[in-house]
Amino acid sequence: MNLLSIIDAIGVFAFALSGLIEARKRDMDLVGLFVVALVTAFGGGTLRDLLLDRQPIFWIQHDAYAVAILALALVFAFVPAAGRIPAAVLLVADALGLGLFCVAGVGYALEAKTSLFIAALMGVITGTFGGVLRDVLCNKLPALFRQTPLYATCAFAGSYLYGGLLLAGVANQVAVWVAIAFIAAFRLAALRWHWVLPVSRR
Amino acid sequence: MNLLSIIDAIGVFAFALSGLIEARKRDMDLVGLFVVALVTAFGGGTLRDLLLDRQPIFWIQHDAYAVAILALALVFAFVPAAGRIPAAVLLVADALGLGLFCVAGVGYALEAKTSLFIAALMGVITGTFGGVLRDVLCNKLPALFRQTPLYATCAFAGSYLYGGLLLAGVANQVAVWVAIAFIAAFRLAALRWHWVLPVSRR
Amino acid sequence: MNLLSIIDAIGVFAFALSGLIEARKRDMDLVGLFVVALVTAFGGGTLRDLLLDRQPIFWIQHDAYAVAILALALVFAFVPAAGRIPAAVLLVADALGLGLFCVAGVGYALEAKTSLFIAALMGVITGTFGGVLRDVLCNKLPALFRQTPLYATCAFAGSYLYGGLLLAGVANQVAVWVAIAFIAAFRLAALRWHWVLPVSRR
Repeated sequence: MNLLSIIDAIGVFAFALSGLIEARKRDMDLVGLFVVALVTAFGGGTLRDLLLDRQPIFWIQHDAYAVAILALALVFAFVPAAGRIPAAVLLVADALGLGLFCVAGVGYALEAKTSLFIAALMGVITGTFGGVLRDVLCNKLPALFRQTPLYATCAFAGSYLYGGLLLAGVANQVAVWVAIAFIAAFRLAALRWHWVLPVSRR
Repeated sequence: MNLLSIIDAIGVFAFALSGLIEARKRDMDLVGLFVVALVTAFGGGTLRDLLLDRQPIFWIQHDAYAVAILALALVFAFVPAAGRIPAAVLLVADALGLGLFCVAGVGYALEAKTSLFIAALMGVITGTFGGVLRDVLCNKLPALFRQTPLYATCAFAGSYLYGGLLLAGVANQVAVWVAIAFIAAFRLAALRWHWVLPVSRR
Repeated sequence: MNLLSIIDAIGVFAFALSGLIEARKRDMDLVGLFVVALVTAFGGGTLRDLLLDRQPIFWIQHDAYAVAILALALVFAFVPAAGRIPAAVLLVADALGLGLFCVAGVGYALEAKTSLFIAALMGVITGTFGGVLRDVLCNKLPALFRQTPLYATCAFAGSYLYGGLLLAGVANQVAVWVAIAFIAAFRLAALRWHWVLPVSRR
């Protein structure tokens, strides 16, 4: 339980950053920066909570997350240097965040007694749907759906792995880190060697 | 109850197909095909369930639907011929799916003790909002809102008819098929003779 | 309680109008006019209710709101003169609606025992997210996120003020009108003197 809380915190930060960067590309003001960062960080987990009927929603109960994202948006709005983060650092942070979010989503889904397949989907939703909502709010075709290096695929495989390990009786403490390492490594390898999924041929 | 389950299954298939076709137009990869198909098929019903506080959500409880849509997306991604379905077949399947979804939505709304007007709206949401979310995810103006042959209008009239028949004491077994036939026939007639609603004049 | 109901009714009308005007710009038909008006008016409050787990959702329980918006959409679709409302009147009505919606959102959040910060956010969501969803459905970058005269900022400041007054023991009857006047005046001043927030510099 405590472990999952820490996991959420790290993921929230990595995802909020990706929202801020996308919002900045659209010349949004402080309000846009904050809302897009909030939605990118909390959108996937919130959708998962609504679908699984989990209440109260974590960022509503623990307001420190939303306050931290507002502070982050303020820094971005007023400090030009805030955006000068090397792309490699961002990609690694995002890959870790993806792993952390998926694991949290699978755990909550299995608590709600879903099947392993649906639990893996809830992992993917937790890890990727904040980014989809970010792109919808930024009025662009979601990057997740385009032929870019594997992202949702890593999330799905790792979520399935995590759920499978748990159902096979592996200790959560072990399964969590196996799954996070698997998802992050798979994602970074897909970036490195440009692994993509096929596009439907017409 | 059993009847509504069958109705849901048929509608899910017809709507997923319309999502796959739209996703393919955007050159989406397998992830995009699957998510857009899932949202088109389940989006309207899921929104209805959230609005009416119905839990658990049906596709989360019965994972066969989501598995089937993933299989369908795989076929679409790898078999070029999968898309070669005559337009007329698709339009008829969609019209039937629309009828089936509306009826399910009205039924669940009346179970939740809404007014007939709101029940009809819930029918329309169930039948049409998956398509609206599909278009939002595909970054286009929702076709439902444009001056195209009547769609939501058929859904609203048929939903009202179905709810009215139920409240008038007509047997559900009868009312269901009257409403589905009415909605599908109304929709196909609107396509055939190009019936449209007026656009607001400026 | 009764006061909040009246507040909701006034706000719904002002926001539906803004939805109709935006839908008309996109040459939407009657269906688009109605849905966009409905989403603009009810979207923020509905999202708040889902996030706070408040059921039943008010416009589903009280169908007079949705019927009134359908009537309004019909007038817009058939009476060209319906759109000839002076811009100043619309801006004042919108500023009042913003104040009214924020106050309702803060009140419901505090009832649900959220922190003051989250309650202020719920006020902002209630007051502004209908407009964000309107823009998403109209396939445009949400105006709320762009460098336009302060809007969400007025909502946040006034929501915080209202929640703070309540927590300080000020009578609700007083606090409500102080907050609404503050938000509307702040918003109209921002329009008059073109107060904007900074854009993030790259």
